[in-house]
This record gives sequence, C-alpha cells and structure tokens, in this order.
Amino acid sequence: MINAYAAHEPGGKLLPFEYDPGELGPEEVEIAVEACGVCHSDLSMLYNEWGMTTYPLVPGHEVAGTVAAVGERVTNLKVGQRVGLGWQSGSCGVCEWCLSGDHILCPHSEATIVGRHGGFADRVRAMARHVIPLPVALPSLSTGPLFCGGLTVFNPLVQFDIKPTARVGVVGIGGLGHLALQFLHAWGCDVTAFTSSPEKAEAALRFGANHILNSRDPQALQSRSFDMILSTASADLDWARYLAALRPKGRLHFVGIAPKPVVTQVFSLVDGQKSISGSPTGSPATLATMLDFVVRHAIEPAIEVFPFSQINEAMEHLRHGKARYRVVLKRE
Amino acid sequence: MINAYAAHEPGGKLLPFEYDPGELGPEEVEIAVEACGVCHSDLSMLYNEWGMTTYPLVPGHEVAGTVAAVGERVTNLKVGQRVGLGWQSGSCGVCEWCLSGDHILCPHSEATIVGRHGGFADRVRAMARHVIPLPVALPSLSTGPLFCGGLTVFNPLVQFDIKPTARVGVVGIGGLGHLALQFLHAWGCDVTAFTSSPEKAEAALRFGANHILNSRDPQALQSRSFDMILSTASADLDWARYLAALRPKGRLHFVGIAPKPVVTQVFSLVDGQKSISGSPTGSPATLATMLDFVVRHAIEPAIEVFPFSQINEAMEHLRHGKARYRVVLKRE
Repeated sequence: MINAYAAHEPGGKLLPFEYDPGELGPEEVEIAVEACGVCHSDLSMLYNEWGMTTYPLVPGHEVAGTVAAVGERVTNLKVGQRVGLGWQSGSCGVCEWCLSGDHILCPHSEATIVGRHGGFADRVRAMARHVIPLPVALPSLSTGPLFCGGLTVFNPLVQFDIKPTARVGVVGIGGLGHLALQFLHAWGCDVTAFTSSPEKAEAALRFGANHILNSRDPQALQSRSFDMILSTASADLDWARYLAALRPKGRLHFVGIAPKPVVTQVFSLVDGQKSISGSPTGSPATLATMLDFVVRHAIEPAIEVFPFSQINEAMEHLRHGKARYRVVLKRE
Repeated sequence: MINAYAAHEPGGKLLPFEYDPGELGPEEVEIAVEACGVCHSDLSMLYNEWGMTTYPLVPGHEVAGTVAAVGERVTNLKVGQRVGLGWQSGSCGVCEWCLSGDHILCPHSEATIVGRHGGFADRVRAMARHVIPLPVALPSLSTGPLFCGGLTVFNPLVQFDIKPTARVGVVGIGGLGHLALQFLHAWGCDVTAFTSSPEKAEAALRFGANHILNSRDPQALQSRSFDMILSTASADLDWARYLAALRPKGRLHFVGIAPKPVVTQVFSLVDGQKSISGSPTGSPATLATMLDFVVRHAIEPAIEVFPFSQINEAMEHLRHGKARYRVVLKRE
C-alpha cells in the first residue's frame, strides 16, 4: 500500500489516503519519495481549474527520491538510485514525437497527477523513461522543483534556440521566474526581471537579473527592448504593451497560463516579424541536459521546506502568493 | 518630369499626374517602368485604411523595368539593366537590422508608396540596394508581382526555416496565395489549399497543391494536421479552429492583415508548443535568392494585363475579388 495525501473534492483539504497501486508494470519504476515540490499546477488541479481533475486527487509532481523497485523490462535504472520525476509520468514511446525526443508532445502523454496518483506520498510510480537520475552534486531537497518549474522555463531556451546575445524579460518572479532568471543569466543573456515588489527586485538581482523593470509603471515598458519576453505569470496583463516592447523578430512566450485570451492585432505581428507562443514542460532528454547545466552553473531553487504533515499549510502558503520561491514538502 | 497616376483623396480615381522628382540622390536609381503589378496594399493605401496615406498618392510597388539613371555613388547597377522594385524603396543601411541583412526590419525603412510616389508612372526612384536585377529568364511583365506578393510568401519559408518535410496549409488563394502554393510545392512540402471555390480549387491543384480543403466545411478542418498555416487573407476567420488544426510545434503565420484582432487562449499555445506570428515582405538578399529559386523552378505569377490607361478598371477588378490571380499594368 502507498501512503499518500489526497483531496476528495475541489479545494478540499489534503487528508491521509492509502491506496493499492497494484502490480508494478514491466516498464514502471516505483520511487521512494524523499521530497516533493509544490507547484501552482497542484493548486490548479486541486481546485479543478482545468476541468480534468479526478478525486481523490493525490497532487505532487516535483519528486526527488530513490528507486524502490523497477519493472522487469526496466534497464536504465537500479534500486537505490537517486532520481527525480516531473509533470510527465508516461508516453507511448512509439509516436513520431516520442521517437524524435519530444515525448512531452506525445498525444498519449500521461501526467503524474492527472487520472493517477502523484508524489504527495511515500511512494510514486512512473514509466522508467520519465524518471531521471540525479547528479551526485544535487541535493534531493532542492532538486524536485527543477523537475517541473525548472524544466518549464529551461525548455523554451532549447526549443526556440535562444542565443546568449538575446535580451530577455521575465514576467512573474515566483517559483518559475526565479529559476528562469538563473537559467538566463547562466545562458549568457541580458536579463530583465519585471516586478513591482522592492523585495522581489532585490532577490531578482541575486538570481542574476541585469535589470529590474517596474511592471506597474506604464512608462517603464519601452518599445523595441526585448528579443523574448517569457511570461511565467498566471495573470492577465496588457499583452499588447508587452508585444510592443519586443524588438523585431521578438517572441512573447507563455509558460504561465493567463486565464483570459490574449488579443492581438495582426498588424503588430506583421510589422516587426513577431511571434506569440507557448510551451508545456519538457521532454526527458531536455531534463537530463538541464540537470547537467544546473550542476555546471550551481543553479539552485530557493526553497521553503514544510514537513508532509503540514501539507495543507504549505498549499495555502503558495496559494496566497507567499512562497519565496518554491515550497518543498519533506518526508519526516 | 515624371508622368504618373495619382489619387487626390481617399478612394479617389487615379488621374494623370505630373511631378518633378528633383535631382537624383547619390545612392538612388531611376527606373523606367515597363510594367507594375497591382497589390491589395495599393487599394488599402488608396482608401487610407492604414491611416498613413498622403495625397496625391501614386500607388504601385511591384515594378519591373530598366535602369534609366543612377546616382553618383551607385556601383551595383548600370543604365539599361533590367530590374525590379517592391514594397521597400529605402533603408538606413547602418542599423543592426540592415547590417544583418534584415533591411525590411530597419526602423528607418521607406516604403515605395508611403510619403513618396510609386510605380504607377513612367518612372520611379528607389535606393540602389532595393533595386534588384532581373534574371534573363524572367519576363518583365510577369515578374513585378514577385517583388511584393511573391516575396511576402517566400520570406516566411526562409525566416522560419520551413522544412521540405512540412505540411503547410495556405489560406486565401489569390495574388499571394497562388504564389505561395507554387513556392511550397517547389520547396518540397505537402501543400493544402483552403478554398470553397471549385474554380480556385482546380487552379490550386495546377499551382501545386497536393490537397484541397473546403474552408466552409467545419468538419474539413481536422485537428493536428499542419506544421504551418500561412494566411494571405485580409479576412477575419475563426482562428481558434486554425490553431487547433496545427500539429505540435505548429505555426499560424499571417502575411495578410486580418482586420479584427486574433483572440487566443494561452492554453491552446502551451499545449502543443504552438506559435502565432506575422511577417512583412522581405529584404533585398531574400529577394535575390527568391528570383534564383523562381528561375530554377519555373515559378510564374498568373497575370491579367491591363494597359496603364485602364488603371482604374484594373483597381476595381482587384477590389471586387475578380483578379486571377495578379493584375499587372503595362506601359503602352
């Protein structure tokens, strides 16, 4: 039996919940969870904001732990090995996207907390190819957040071939944004953090921002300044102004889900050859590349640790925007 | 003096108009116009749809002719040489965009018919670097339309590195669309023409389309079918459906100006890593590359020829959607 925390209704408290995971599949791995980050998506799923939650819901998809058991056809992992697991727990492995290394775009993709039970538990399962070994240098406690939050902001740099000469703005200095600043700094870019909070501005400079832009000052957002603006915010902003702030060939890229539609004049895309785009987390090969990059550049999530027994306090802390910058649950 | 045709008010008739162009600038070229294509942008400028028209307006920016005179610092062109001129007639030459070959993105870009007089005339001037020699194989009459309409649909294939393995849909089978089909066919792509007209469907197959999709049939636009949808239409369509029809990593690209804003849910970009983008015409180096490609693949605009004396009939013919597929004015 697996001992987890589950919500039984939208927005419900997470309560101890025991379930029988059945036999381990031949390509599956069971991970003994040491720590699990709390992502904004866990809240969205808890409140069924995306209409795809099934209850009981066991959230948690920023897992760090050790391999507890492997299925009979698993060849890439061994019991006792330190590993991590992110948003994606399964893929078909044979479609054109999987075969091209784009597993995250697999039409049969399985998410760790959608229709199955996630990492707020003592153990969690996933297909072996989505369970990535942790480099020795990375501590389990602070590594979980890299598996969803980190990958989500690292992935666009790879996917869109962002150059170290690029000028990049980051909107939303939180769990994802504070990692984006670190990645972009290490990537060699000219990095601007958008924030109106003096506290976050000071932290953003520590995370590697070259510039701070006061997002509440309508004069501050000058036109033709950025090659890319990366929005990690789950908020509705005046996107037309952000589009205008792009240099020619610039890209306004979303990894945070703005609730309301983005409204764009076609002329403002044509003039200046601009793009608006989005991307989900990332694929296993990108995850492994990211971990290598993280070690080389000493990138580290800034975390606040809660024991699993305070899981509801941890969720509320995040929900009220108090996380600085990622909440991690620790097994006691 | 230059003998041109000018409109003196929004939507006004084009009337014979004589003007003194002054001394030829040192980096300028004067072209003796043999033929000039009529582009939808000429109509937009005539009716001041973009709020940037000055009257008297001499439209015309798909010029084919011969060099009549060159400024004293012009080294790349000679009197008598066959040349063409498109939308862009000038650029600063020294900004980062010009120096990178992206002259069309120059912040000081000058357009042939904006604030100056265009090619509906016996002569027209432009900076030498925007006047491109015509390959011997290309007839003057049908080559003008390549300089704006052709370049506008060729440019995105270069800018976004479209692969010959891509599946591309073309929306709007008109002056631009019929050239897009030819380019994409020669590019090696799987090409789909969107049209509800049986006459255009039959023509589209001749222009190189592999498939016809009835754009009025809501069932026809299946999801996950296209790597790129190129819209040449100046119409408002249900863009959310087109976005859904893109495969993962797909791009909905605008070269036609849809009048109303495009409204997009962020989730539909994130899920599938999709982009919405736009681009203007293109830069001189791309123009020269396009002409080379045109000769190699025997690409040819389908034209209807009017004498300059029937210039108003030609404009009306285009305005009423009757052009098959590009109207060209010919010097008598």
